[in-house]
Amino acid sequence: MKVKILPDNIQLKALPGEKLLEVIARCHVLIDAGCAGSGVCGQCRVKIEKGELVASIGVKQSAEEYAQGWRQACLSRVKTDLEIFIPQSSRLEHEFVSRPVSAAKGQFLTEAEIAGLNTGWEKKPLVQKFYLELPRPSRQDNASDSQRLLREMRQQFALQNLEIDFAAMKILPAALRKNDFKVTASVWDGEKIIRIEPGNTAAKNYALAIDLGTTTICGQLLGLDQGQALATISHFNQQKNFGADVISRIVHAAKAGGLCELQDASVNTINQIIGQLLAKTGVQPEEVSFATAAGNTTMTHLLLGLEPQALRLSPYTPAANIFPALRAKELGIKLAEHAYLFAAPCVASYVGGDIVAGALAAGIYKRKGITLYLDIGTNGEIVLGNEEWMFCASCSAGPAFEGGGIKFGITAAEDAIERFFVDDRKIHAAWQTIGNKPGRGICGSGIINIAAELFRRGLVSRDGKINLSSSPLARIGKNGPEILIAPASENALQQDIVFTEADLDNLLRAKAAMFAGYRTLLSQAGLGFNDLDQLIIAGNFGSYLDIENAITIGLLPDLDRAKIKFIGNGSLLGARLLALSGELKKDAETISRLMNNIELADNQTFQDQYMAAMFLPHTDEKLFASVLAEIDK
Amino acid sequence: MKVKILPDNIQLKALPGEKLLEVIARCHVLIDAGCAGSGVCGQCRVKIEKGELVASIGVKQSAEEYAQGWRQACLSRVKTDLEIFIPQSSRLEHEFVSRPVSAAKGQFLTEAEIAGLNTGWEKKPLVQKFYLELPRPSRQDNASDSQRLLREMRQQFALQNLEIDFAAMKILPAALRKNDFKVTASVWDGEKIIRIEPGNTAAKNYALAIDLGTTTICGQLLGLDQGQALATISHFNQQKNFGADVISRIVHAAKAGGLCELQDASVNTINQIIGQLLAKTGVQPEEVSFATAAGNTTMTHLLLGLEPQALRLSPYTPAANIFPALRAKELGIKLAEHAYLFAAPCVASYVGGDIVAGALAAGIYKRKGITLYLDIGTNGEIVLGNEEWMFCASCSAGPAFEGGGIKFGITAAEDAIERFFVDDRKIHAAWQTIGNKPGRGICGSGIINIAAELFRRGLVSRDGKINLSSSPLARIGKNGPEILIAPASENALQQDIVFTEADLDNLLRAKAAMFAGYRTLLSQAGLGFNDLDQLIIAGNFGSYLDIENAITIGLLPDLDRAKIKFIGNGSLLGARLLALSGELKKDAETISRLMNNIELADNQTFQDQYMAAMFLPHTDEKLFASVLAEIDK
Repeated sequence: MKVKILPDNIQLKALPGEKLLEVIARCHVLIDAGCAGSGVCGQCRVKIEKGELVASIGVKQSAEEYAQGWRQACLSRVKTDLEIFIPQSSRLEHEFVSRPVSAAKGQFLTEAEIAGLNTGWEKKPLVQKFYLELPRPSRQDNASDSQRLLREMRQQFALQNLEIDFAAMKILPAALRKNDFKVTASVWDGEKIIRIEPGNTAAKNYALAIDLGTTTICGQLLGLDQGQALATISHFNQQKNFGADVISRIVHAAKAGGLCELQDASVNTINQIIGQLLAKTGVQPEEVSFATAAGNTTMTHLLLGLEPQALRLSPYTPAANIFPALRAKELGIKLAEHAYLFAAPCVASYVGGDIVAGALAAGIYKRKGITLYLDIGTNGEIVLGNEEWMFCASCSAGPAFEGGGIKFGITAAEDAIERFFVDDRKIHAAWQTIGNKPGRGICGSGIINIAAELFRRGLVSRDGKINLSSSPLARIGKNGPEILIAPASENALQQDIVFTEADLDNLLRAKAAMFAGYRTLLSQAGLGFNDLDQLIIAGNFGSYLDIENAITIGLLPDLDRAKIKFIGNGSLLGARLLALSGELKKDAETISRLMNNIELADNQTFQDQYMAAMFLPHTDEKLFASVLAEIDK
Repeated sequence: MKVKILPDNIQLKALPGEKLLEVIARCHVLIDAGCAGSGVCGQCRVKIEKGELVASIGVKQSAEEYAQGWRQACLSRVKTDLEIFIPQSSRLEHEFVSRPVSAAKGQFLTEAEIAGLNTGWEKKPLVQKFYLELPRPSRQDNASDSQRLLREMRQQFALQNLEIDFAAMKILPAALRKNDFKVTASVWDGEKIIRIEPGNTAAKNYALAIDLGTTTICGQLLGLDQGQALATISHFNQQKNFGADVISRIVHAAKAGGLCELQDASVNTINQIIGQLLAKTGVQPEEVSFATAAGNTTMTHLLLGLEPQALRLSPYTPAANIFPALRAKELGIKLAEHAYLFAAPCVASYVGGDIVAGALAAGIYKRKGITLYLDIGTNGEIVLGNEEWMFCASCSAGPAFEGGGIKFGITAAEDAIERFFVDDRKIHAAWQTIGNKPGRGICGSGIINIAAELFRRGLVSRDGKINLSSSPLARIGKNGPEILIAPASENALQQDIVFTEADLDNLLRAKAAMFAGYRTLLSQAGLGFNDLDQLIIAGNFGSYLDIENAITIGLLPDLDRAKIKFIGNGSLLGARLLALSGELKKDAETISRLMNNIELADNQTFQDQYMAAMFLPHTDEKLFASVLAEIDK
């Protein structure tokens, strides 16, 4: 069926019976689905302009509205060709771009649930604005402007030991006298007055939270009065021109001018994002009081212009793990003179501020129960701990999760095959691309889904071999045994898209590295999977994981599924929390100091666990009892 | 007599019998006279190349040396035309340019005596350098470079709570690895690492102390290992192009771009001084670790680029009195990236960092006895106090002390008449210019000397009137009564240089303002002149004062002369002390906070005292008993 989205005028295809919410999610229109499609929140209101939907009336809907053609996208299924109008009020522009609306079976937390992971802190943004009316100077009271301001901040707001930033001091006399000594003072982290404005501008206080990803940089504009996200924009990190991964970036940084080029590239990306966020929200540049940024250690070094070479050479030493707040403008970031940028603290060369931010967002350090936090990707990052202790590690899983090293692997895009099913008779395969376009390759989550389905259906064996007699889809190709995923006649490549035994081996190495990583941390703590209170999966890739399939191949442990929670972009969540509370900023520094980084590279437990995990799902059947029981069924 | 100074090849004239030390002082060759010409120190060694001197052998001289023609300039008097060689070793390039070698009768303190005014502090320059050998990173110890450095600074030097300046953090990885983790760390004021250099450079640590004068900026390069002054250079403040006094500068700052122009002008002057100091000493720019600057409140505002308008409008409010340490480079000062500039704290709009620095140098706040500290000029500044309390004030004396508002007044220059004598018969006047050139006008100290001599000889009366019958020098001119100082035939102007009754009135107003100022502070404290333990006179003008003449006209109080001490450039002395000790930097801030500024403008005591001081020396004869006794004699 053809579906047209209005007023965007986007055309896409849908299957009859497909949930409209999922169709919409595929077309990059971000729709508000606070309850993750469970029909409760009523925010995904859309209007039928043409065609028919199979749809029940929403809990929060009036009969009149329903009669006018308004539906909840989550309660509607495609019946005919459609034209659907999505009003601005239903759009997710105040939500995370990376919020995985379309993923299969994850336990997506609502905003409120995510907020509930770290509670008990006082909202006190890193920049607070205070309106105050100063007594005019007189012969009897002719303290300097600075002394007057500091005195009144002390008397009116009990703010002791404040300093005045020099840039603010420079404009202080003019600012005070422009509106009869009535001014608004912006205070950085309870310690420094960074800005003085005539009159009362206390309500205009915004911040930028940045997730500084190797591949993608995501910026979110926050309104500091409520702490709400006003808009979120992502762009590819322009550093991609200098290499896809952190190692190639560091190598580039060693060239003459290389570090500057890399710094400029990330700064330019951020500036592009800022421009769009401001245009979208109408917030003025000077109303953005500061920025927080959370990135891995390399990305943080490159943004700040810190020499990164020692990060990639044993023993892997960062220039710094805790960074001072810097003037954003000094870095080239197009924010106002007074705006600082604070980068989330890192732990080690391969456990960065993104993970510290994630651990902050997940509230690991405030819970009695034990959390396992995973950020799955080429570099998998792992945190294990609770309110008393924290271990962390990073493991190089290789690029398989991002489609690398896989014969037909591609990065996630509209024409990437993501879902894959084999029929009961094991004769036909059904597949689906992310954007329902003709397939051109297989994305990372697709690879996991394919491997799980093939294992489940018996097309591959527990030791990762293709069972050639199991199905007509299994065959010997140029590079050995392979499974036909999408025949040439049905795809955009016009050649058979296959999944080879070598691909499977690469995937096994990747998932074994992740598994061995977190199991090593557990063993370091003397714990087993049953001791886990929750498993939090963060990151873009993680968000598109089919949780059941990820367990089936042994990437995730065989836990009670209710304990597994997706929080989406943990790094961005953490950057946002950092922005909202000086207390949480201190917590982040505490987390970074207390996290015990376990080097996995030459760790014997890790090596043993890795070998044991090179099976589907694992050599130890007891660890994946539910998976095997399901398959047996 | 003609005197030629070698190897400079300077020619000048001298009177037979004139002290050679004074002759030399007139030609801007700075000669070392640590004992102020008392013949004791033996440092003013010169060699007779031609001609003859009347000279006794010095205490520290050998007969052989004397036979070779070496003499002490202070023990020698001009006899014939001369050629005199002054070796480098006798030159005062490590001393203050403004040190008043030629002044008449002041109690000039030696360097050691000046140092003795503020004692009991630990030498701990604002930047200290620490050489340390860090353990190399290893798998077992792969803390970040920053953490490693901070840890070792803590362990090796017990420096807690250090931060690393971001600029230093940026180069830290490279600096550590350039010389096998052996580095020198520069620490600002015990709190922040501002620079990291490979290897041991601890010995190369210099600072720049700046006296930021309205007319003249003086820079002094300090070697921080010993705290010694290596060279001193003065230049006219290029801001002079925008007006002679602080008010006209502030007015200029109100014009578009005016503040920037003024800031640039003082920065350019400082840069010129820095260039010459470095060229002279061979110190490299990056070896200058920081600068301290002491200036009046306006000069400090203008250097830092702080809005100065409120300084000149009642109630006279500075933007700030205490300033953060700033990167010198941000101000445009040509020092290295890491170098901070710290400006001495101010007290009020007209009591600035120069006075705080002077009070610091004079050690007022450490003495039980009461000090009166005077900086005499167009703006006279006064401090009165001891270890328990301090009052300060500024009074506008008008420009008479600098030759302004005086018919033939000019600023001090070689052709300015400074000394003046009337013969016993009151028929002839003898006069002398600063550089023994033909007279072109009268400088400020000359005006005082003239007034005192005329009063002493009875040519003017106690109420400031010219006694026409007293001498043929007294006459009625175009503007009323006047005294002929230098007839047209003898001077460069080719017209009679005279001193009018109106001039005398202007001088009386100026000295009355100073006198009333310090007497008001004394009365505020319930004290009289006899309670003073010392009277310290600072500043360039003060240094050229003839102390006896200054008392004779009632500018200075009639104290035991031994209590009156000239310290020369108190502002520069204080800037130097600030550089040498973080403790003294704190003291300066304490002084600035504790100084109780008394506004004289609408103070009734001041008005009364002012009127009473409009006499020679004063209406109250008892206050100047010694002066009147001398005249009576």
